[in-house]
Amino acid sequence: MEKRKKIINVGLIGLGTVGTGVARILLKKRRTILQNTGLDFRLKKVCVRHLKKRRPISLKGIEVTDQPKKLTQDASLQQIIELIGGLGPAERIIREALENDKDVISANKALFAERGVGIYQVSKRTRNYIGLEAAVCGGIPVIQGIKEGLASSRIDQFYGILNGTCNYILSQMSKFKTSYQDALEAAQKKGYAEQDPTLDVNGSDTAHKLAILARLAFKLEIDYKAIHCEGIEGITAEDIQYASEMGYSIKLLAIAKRHSAKSIELRVHPALLDGKHLLANIAGVNNGVLIHGDETGEVLFYGKGAGEKPTASAVVSDMISIALLSQSGIMANEAIYGKAKISKISSVESRYYLRFQCANRSGVMGSLTRSLGRQGISLSSVKQPEVQHAKSAPVVILTHKTREDKLRRALKKIQSSKGIKGKPVILRIEGREDSAV
Amino acid sequence: MEKRKKIINVGLIGLGTVGTGVARILLKKRRTILQNTGLDFRLKKVCVRHLKKRRPISLKGIEVTDQPKKLTQDASLQQIIELIGGLGPAERIIREALENDKDVISANKALFAERGVGIYQVSKRTRNYIGLEAAVCGGIPVIQGIKEGLASSRIDQFYGILNGTCNYILSQMSKFKTSYQDALEAAQKKGYAEQDPTLDVNGSDTAHKLAILARLAFKLEIDYKAIHCEGIEGITAEDIQYASEMGYSIKLLAIAKRHSAKSIELRVHPALLDGKHLLANIAGVNNGVLIHGDETGEVLFYGKGAGEKPTASAVVSDMISIALLSQSGIMANEAIYGKAKISKISSVESRYYLRFQCANRSGVMGSLTRSLGRQGISLSSVKQPEVQHAKSAPVVILTHKTREDKLRRALKKIQSSKGIKGKPVILRIEGREDSAV
Repeated sequence: MEKRKKIINVGLIGLGTVGTGVARILLKKRRTILQNTGLDFRLKKVCVRHLKKRRPISLKGIEVTDQPKKLTQDASLQQIIELIGGLGPAERIIREALENDKDVISANKALFAERGVGIYQVSKRTRNYIGLEAAVCGGIPVIQGIKEGLASSRIDQFYGILNGTCNYILSQMSKFKTSYQDALEAAQKKGYAEQDPTLDVNGSDTAHKLAILARLAFKLEIDYKAIHCEGIEGITAEDIQYASEMGYSIKLLAIAKRHSAKSIELRVHPALLDGKHLLANIAGVNNGVLIHGDETGEVLFYGKGAGEKPTASAVVSDMISIALLSQSGIMANEAIYGKAKISKISSVESRYYLRFQCANRSGVMGSLTRSLGRQGISLSSVKQPEVQHAKSAPVVILTHKTREDKLRRALKKIQSSKGIKGKPVILRIEGREDSAV
Repeated sequence: MEKRKKIINVGLIGLGTVGTGVARILLKKRRTILQNTGLDFRLKKVCVRHLKKRRPISLKGIEVTDQPKKLTQDASLQQIIELIGGLGPAERIIREALENDKDVISANKALFAERGVGIYQVSKRTRNYIGLEAAVCGGIPVIQGIKEGLASSRIDQFYGILNGTCNYILSQMSKFKTSYQDALEAAQKKGYAEQDPTLDVNGSDTAHKLAILARLAFKLEIDYKAIHCEGIEGITAEDIQYASEMGYSIKLLAIAKRHSAKSIELRVHPALLDGKHLLANIAGVNNGVLIHGDETGEVLFYGKGAGEKPTASAVVSDMISIALLSQSGIMANEAIYGKAKISKISSVESRYYLRFQCANRSGVMGSLTRSLGRQGISLSSVKQPEVQHAKSAPVVILTHKTREDKLRRALKKIQSSKGIKGKPVILRIEGREDSAV
């Protein structure tokens, strides 16, 4: 039912891992894509940093340059694919591409999370499309799912495991009972973690992706800096073990909830997730997003969140979607209806896992639970494993739902008391309903 | 970034559960959809069987008729939504709609599985689109995911839990150790199974959906009758229990594998699925499809497979996709590259779970395993639970991979031997690799 063939001339900026993958698909799968979609993508120009570097693919017949403007200013190109990452140059290149009436496909989550507002203003004015499927969850078509599959739903909330590095580290720690440091080193050896893993393990990468998804799901402008973000650096094998004994996995979660039309809750932090929760069984470098829409109910998207092939495949899938949209000329997908009011973490309600190191003498547990009780925090479980001949022992407490500020007040009081050693471990609990109030 | 608004006039045929849901979304969410997509869907005409029946929604301002041709021949309508189900009248209506240059959205899996070939010939000639998202897995955007998300991938295989009724029954049997009959009655009470559940429990419904997905995934014409199909009527609580002890769930699976460009394997049957497999944890009325694409790797789509709201939401999502495609005029998604050669089940390789009822005397087990051995079938596990003072005892055998015809030959021999009581239970095993050859 090929109505007619449509030729799309493409310029690719950045020939790293993903860029090479995209070039490979466009060169090797041109016919498959044409058959599947009716779109004939022609890779015309590639912009690289080092012209003389040897490449693993042949670019015969393609103009290779180190000048981005030779692509952004070329009137014959309809799509620019930005895969250099980072903020400064990428932003300039994308703005220039939009100003020159090109649609842009990018995997640059940091840029769009932190400076997306300004870039979208340009695209709105120039009436061009921006595709970010590859910026979130690699090969999983979650952005497209939200845009079309859930288009008649009001999205109420979503939960995501959005960072493969963190999920791999936590899975390793859980499976082999190893320390954070050992699991991180294993991830680095396998190429699942960078030599400097900071942006992954501190939650920033997850928060970037959360910002992009939340903008799309709630159709509100998101202030990235207002997202509460904690990383996984402080997670210990001990806590994973205690959590597991109670039927929980520890996962780095991105959480988004709609409270009212413009008031939302966005947070990134490790959490104890009920073992029966759909996201609890997502292991290794995989990603998953569980979205609740008022019409569809819960929908889960799962797959490989990173890697050359899945991410490159997402870029190409985005090129297809945007070519179709651009051709139809009727898309309002990027419409935004105001600024999100993001709840302060102090006002967010959650259940908590608390682990204290308590001196092994009478009265400590009593004073601890009293301090929690005075803030109206009720406990759903208390556990003190038997420790012999030790001066202190761990006490693990699960609370019922409470506001974060109440917990913080109680903890301040508890930490100043004599029987408590060091800093307590504080983790939120998700996915299991309170059994009592 | 609303480029311009596009009005789509819609005619809806069939106002049952899903039809009512679609009408409700189109009437109540018209503005949401317009904001999200730039498309303004206007429900102009509804065709029902009984004009005087009271309806749960107000159709004020909408022309209601009992004559389908008042819709299919109305030049002002761009989309016809067929939700009456069944073969005869539905096929005539859809053909007439296509002949009158309308795009068609349908949830009619039986019709498209059994007679899709002829209808697609019409749509190819008239250059119209057919949307079947709602025919497979309700609210889960799996068809769209294959069409666009995996458009640059060659799909190698997919596994699906496509029937909520069967999955509910098997989940109940597993959770509460009840019989098939009790679980079926529970499903009927909850409205998850029809009073006549035949098409669900015998696997036909799953095979219909498999045919539709396979056509799309492999781009080959599928002969529905060539799909090997077994239902769940013979599953017992006993087999679920034995499977569970070995770490398996029993699920009704749709399985599709590509062997070469035109040679594929399609089958529907209950199977022991490794408990760690992603589909093993899909419980209750939920559906899931796990697709392996050469670029994306494994991608799982999960969600509610039926019900008014998810299915109606899928219809509307399809209306959106098709309106965009129709507008762009460049879609080749429905291109088909020949007829599929579907493997005979006798030539398919699988691991097997076998349960025999053996007379409690010496030599029976030996003759049984010898018969399997003579066909080159090697065993990975043999188990005979201790039974006291009984004349016969169950023997559970798991085999390594073997061709179905070899197994059938061995079973014929075994059943004719004296020590075996009744018919053996034969189930395939999926999701766990052979540990030996």
